[in-house]
Amino acid sequence: MTNSRHNIREIRADRGTTLKAKSWLTEAPLRMLMNNLDPDVAENPHELVVYGGIGRAARTWEDFDRIVAALTDLNEDETLMVQSGKPVGVFRTHKDAPRVLIANSNLVPHWATWDHFNELDKKGLAMYGQMTAGSWIYIGTQGIVQGTYETFVEAGRQHYQGNLTGKWILTGGLGGMGGAQPLAAVMAGACCLAVECDETRIDFRLRTRYVDEKAKTLDEALEMIDRWTKAGEAKSVGLIGNAAEIFPELVRRMKAGGPRPDIVTDQTSAHDPIHGYLPLGWSIAEWRAKQESDPKAVAAAARAAMRIHVEAMVDFWNAGVPTLDYGNNIRQVAKEEGFENAFAFPGFVPAYIRPLFCRGIGPFRWAALSGDPEDIYKTDAKVKELLPDNAHLHNWLDMARERIAFQGLPARICWVGLGDRHRLGLAFNEMVRNGELKAPIVIGRDHLDSGSVASPNRETEAMKDGSDAVSDWPLLNALLNCASGATWVSLHHGGGVGMGFSQHSGMVICCDGSEEADRRVERVLWNDPATGVMRHADAGYDIALDCAREKGLRLPGILGN
Amino acid sequence: MTNSRHNIREIRADRGTTLKAKSWLTEAPLRMLMNNLDPDVAENPHELVVYGGIGRAARTWEDFDRIVAALTDLNEDETLMVQSGKPVGVFRTHKDAPRVLIANSNLVPHWATWDHFNELDKKGLAMYGQMTAGSWIYIGTQGIVQGTYETFVEAGRQHYQGNLTGKWILTGGLGGMGGAQPLAAVMAGACCLAVECDETRIDFRLRTRYVDEKAKTLDEALEMIDRWTKAGEAKSVGLIGNAAEIFPELVRRMKAGGPRPDIVTDQTSAHDPIHGYLPLGWSIAEWRAKQESDPKAVAAAARAAMRIHVEAMVDFWNAGVPTLDYGNNIRQVAKEEGFENAFAFPGFVPAYIRPLFCRGIGPFRWAALSGDPEDIYKTDAKVKELLPDNAHLHNWLDMARERIAFQGLPARICWVGLGDRHRLGLAFNEMVRNGELKAPIVIGRDHLDSGSVASPNRETEAMKDGSDAVSDWPLLNALLNCASGATWVSLHHGGGVGMGFSQHSGMVICCDGSEEADRRVERVLWNDPATGVMRHADAGYDIALDCAREKGLRLPGILGN
Ligand SMILES: NC(=O)c1ccc[n+]([C@@H]2O[C@H](COP(=O)([O-])OP(=O)(O)OC[C@H]3O[C@@H](n4cnc5c(N)ncnc54)[C@H](O)[C@@H]3O)[C@@H](O)[C@H]2O)c1
Ligand SMILES: NC(=O)c1ccc[n+]([C@@H]2O[C@H](COP(=O)([O-])OP(=O)(O)OC[C@H]3O[C@@H](n4cnc5c(N)ncnc54)[C@H](O)[C@@H]3O)[C@@H](O)[C@H]2O)c1
Repeated sequence: MTNSRHNIREIRADRGTTLKAKSWLTEAPLRMLMNNLDPDVAENPHELVVYGGIGRAARTWEDFDRIVAALTDLNEDETLMVQSGKPVGVFRTHKDAPRVLIANSNLVPHWATWDHFNELDKKGLAMYGQMTAGSWIYIGTQGIVQGTYETFVEAGRQHYQGNLTGKWILTGGLGGMGGAQPLAAVMAGACCLAVECDETRIDFRLRTRYVDEKAKTLDEALEMIDRWTKAGEAKSVGLIGNAAEIFPELVRRMKAGGPRPDIVTDQTSAHDPIHGYLPLGWSIAEWRAKQESDPKAVAAAARAAMRIHVEAMVDFWNAGVPTLDYGNNIRQVAKEEGFENAFAFPGFVPAYIRPLFCRGIGPFRWAALSGDPEDIYKTDAKVKELLPDNAHLHNWLDMARERIAFQGLPARICWVGLGDRHRLGLAFNEMVRNGELKAPIVIGRDHLDSGSVASPNRETEAMKDGSDAVSDWPLLNALLNCASGATWVSLHHGGGVGMGFSQHSGMVICCDGSEEADRRVERVLWNDPATGVMRHADAGYDIALDCAREKGLRLPGILGN
Repeated sequence: MTNSRHNIREIRADRGTTLKAKSWLTEAPLRMLMNNLDPDVAENPHELVVYGGIGRAARTWEDFDRIVAALTDLNEDETLMVQSGKPVGVFRTHKDAPRVLIANSNLVPHWATWDHFNELDKKGLAMYGQMTAGSWIYIGTQGIVQGTYETFVEAGRQHYQGNLTGKWILTGGLGGMGGAQPLAAVMAGACCLAVECDETRIDFRLRTRYVDEKAKTLDEALEMIDRWTKAGEAKSVGLIGNAAEIFPELVRRMKAGGPRPDIVTDQTSAHDPIHGYLPLGWSIAEWRAKQESDPKAVAAAARAAMRIHVEAMVDFWNAGVPTLDYGNNIRQVAKEEGFENAFAFPGFVPAYIRPLFCRGIGPFRWAALSGDPEDIYKTDAKVKELLPDNAHLHNWLDMARERIAFQGLPARICWVGLGDRHRLGLAFNEMVRNGELKAPIVIGRDHLDSGSVASPNRETEAMKDGSDAVSDWPLLNALLNCASGATWVSLHHGGGVGMGFSQHSGMVICCDGSEEADRRVERVLWNDPATGVMRHADAGYDIALDCAREKGLRLPGILGN
């Protein structure tokens, strides 16, 4: 088992227009599977791990090889079934059906725990698919930058008339995901002060230009923020320090008439009290040592510090500063530590993402199978042409081109919604057909999207009607994408928040330039976000109800039409 | 809410060839939805309840009306989405896609409990779909008769060279489902002694000819059994009595050289200790009264009696008598009552049904949309013609025609597997095309089938590889049926064993006589049972591996082909 999960081969997707598979519709999943394991994309490709701890692209290396063989050999009227990373069957379907159907880590609810999963995993019977790892459409860190950017932009829309110039965001943590924050803030037009206890993390982000400056003292950092905000310059600083100390100090200064942040959030790894959060007054060295020698003491001290950290966040909130939980569970810990009011400020989805989900807007993405960055730049230009009035989107595309290095096959992520996705898809397919692009484009999305996820602690937290845990929606989404002709469709359990806590579905469609693809693209890229509008309309959100009416959706039990 | 679930209308599906909908592919789900609520089919149609406690066909009567309207209006390239009995959307798909996609009572695992379901249900946000209730292919009690028949026939195959002549089956309970046992036993060629404490239940089964005789004493019943088995006559007797008293008495007599049953099972409602099982020494009247006044005392006394009952069953088992649990959870209760050895004898699925599942054999069924019984008789004849060597099947068809009254639209159930289902489907479609049948046929199955269910306490109990709780399989089954062109496809949670304990999928395909239907039928009715063979082959069952090789299935990760 362990052996068949380890391999030193280097996997990279083919580039160019020579096919290994029998058609682009099977070449596409083949290249995207391989791309997920590209050393520039995956976190630990030799163990088949793409991202998110143990999110894998295939169950074992033998399974990987057999998937590759099956895809290489697959006919245009056949469908490959992948069960938790293992290619279990090839069946006759038809040209308009998906070429690959995937189900990853689904467990009957009563047994849907990490313990049971681990037991199965040890026997070689399971694989954790995360979201885009096991469904072959992960494209590296661009996704988290864009998600964070959208969150900040939406906060700007709600609180600052869409203009973050001269504003600053206070946050904590510059780790794997959190490191995207200063860049995303700057792209959104804001300054950012990020408190990070580990100087090496700041230095890493300085090297990749995700953060602009480093500061050793709060005064130094605040001086920069003051200077930049006054100049209307969007820049970021990483401050070496402990958030549990700096946040309360900033509250004190604010109350005394000092500087006041315009948005407050946090991305320390509060979800893991042993390895994720530095206790107050501890050095990094002491922390690392005690993680081994006395993990319980670490957890207790970290949890106590988190409470102080959250108390400061609630103080900001009470002073009228927009404050949000970014999905690291820090409110829960503070509550368990006896801070009754820990949930005073909201999670990021209900606060900022849900209004987008109501219009089917979410992490739409595409990749160029040619491997040529020019193909993506051409699609960037096409997006601007087709969506001429979306200034934030234009801004994102410009900044992304400048600041974000491609990982693996060149790819782009863009938050667009119902009514736009299919137009972009049709335009890309046309560009493939007329030779503007060197090879086909695949279009997909994260499972964290409008109609594709039920996850009561994150994406479906605090739904208006209380339907947080109803998972009919992602299942229907997968079935409809299958019925509409997506190229591959997946159904997963446990992504993002772990076993027992989510069900979600993925889809990818290949624009091979054919007229058949036109029809499929039009259906899939309309229907997929439309299920999200439907799900939110059913829950009673006005934005979704308005959007459904405006787009002419037929929702019999919801709109009575 | 409650109001919109009550209505005194009488619903019956249209008969004949005049369509309300725009094509047979939408008329079919329309008639089958209505048929599920036919007063001759449904248990409580005014409350939309089809069977199984609260298994419904639509969430409310308004939803029913809107589903009817949507189906009536649906075009041949559109798909209706039904979310827990509510018609939430109509989307553009294509001709080969399903016309209806259904998801019922699915909940994110951590919240997948009756408590949470009931909370949602009270808010009008849920519906329990059971298996064929919410997926519109319930056909009345024929299903349970046939399932029980197949179980007994398979037991006969395994223990008595396929011949039950002169053998007798001992069981308990002649209720809603259990009442099928004497008829199924007789059809399988065996005699049956069924212990039932409530005389009115025996009388009801005498009237419908499901049981042949009634006895008031054990001696009287055993005299009949003796006479019938000696004469090689298959007949049944309902004995008024308490199973917890009669079973041990029979063990004593057997040990003393008295009569010895050939198969032992039980279908009292042991799963419900308050309403389901008469305590030892109690009268029916006392039992009913105390259910209200002192339910705890009832449960304690019932559970104690069940232990005695199971001890007797284990005695039979230890004496070499094939003994099986028929899914009423009686072993679990006995175990909780301190009887360590309660699980000595197996459940019916691992013992008798799994070998069938390994070949894709399960509860295949079809209904005549014409409403004309002659259409079913013609298909009966066609089945015999196409499967000339399956004596048990011929026997079933003959007995079913004679003994089972149609409920609602005439229908037939037949356990057939991979390689036969699509042949029957194609033949029926041909009969529709050439006018032999008056109108189209719909073909479906129970969710309790080879590839369509994960239910660790029943259908997937004790899988060879320990994969009981892996629910990737039913999800893949639904996706593949969708990709293959079934007319409607459904994904449910909690059927049979309740919230948290199962996930399963349904499919129905309409044979409208067209050549397009030929292609769909061939794909769907091959692929659907093939996923069952695949699932059991993956778990390591030799029968399934042999079947897969024999049928030429391509199972890359399993057979390496
Ligand atoms: N909701 C979402 O979609 C989403 C997305 C990404 C990440 N997250 C969550 O955000 C958190 C961060 O993710 P990550 O991948 O960046 O984790 P990570 O472990 O890579 O980074 C955490 C960083 O916080 C720093 N840190 C720890 N304690 C600190 C303290 N007291 N003061 C200042 N800095 C401290 C660490 O040095 C580290 O650099 C996680 O809890 C993750 O689950 C949520
Ligand atoms: N595994 C399956 O597929 C499957 C199928 C059908 C039923 N079942 C199970 O079988 C059981 C019976 O189902 P049902 O619908 O017939 O239930 P039911 O409640 O309608 O019938 C139970 C019968 O048992 C009788 N009974 C109760 N205690 C008795 C005793 N001590 N001695 C003799 N008779 C007694 C009752 O009078 C009643 O007639 C249930 O537990 C059900 O869950 C399982």
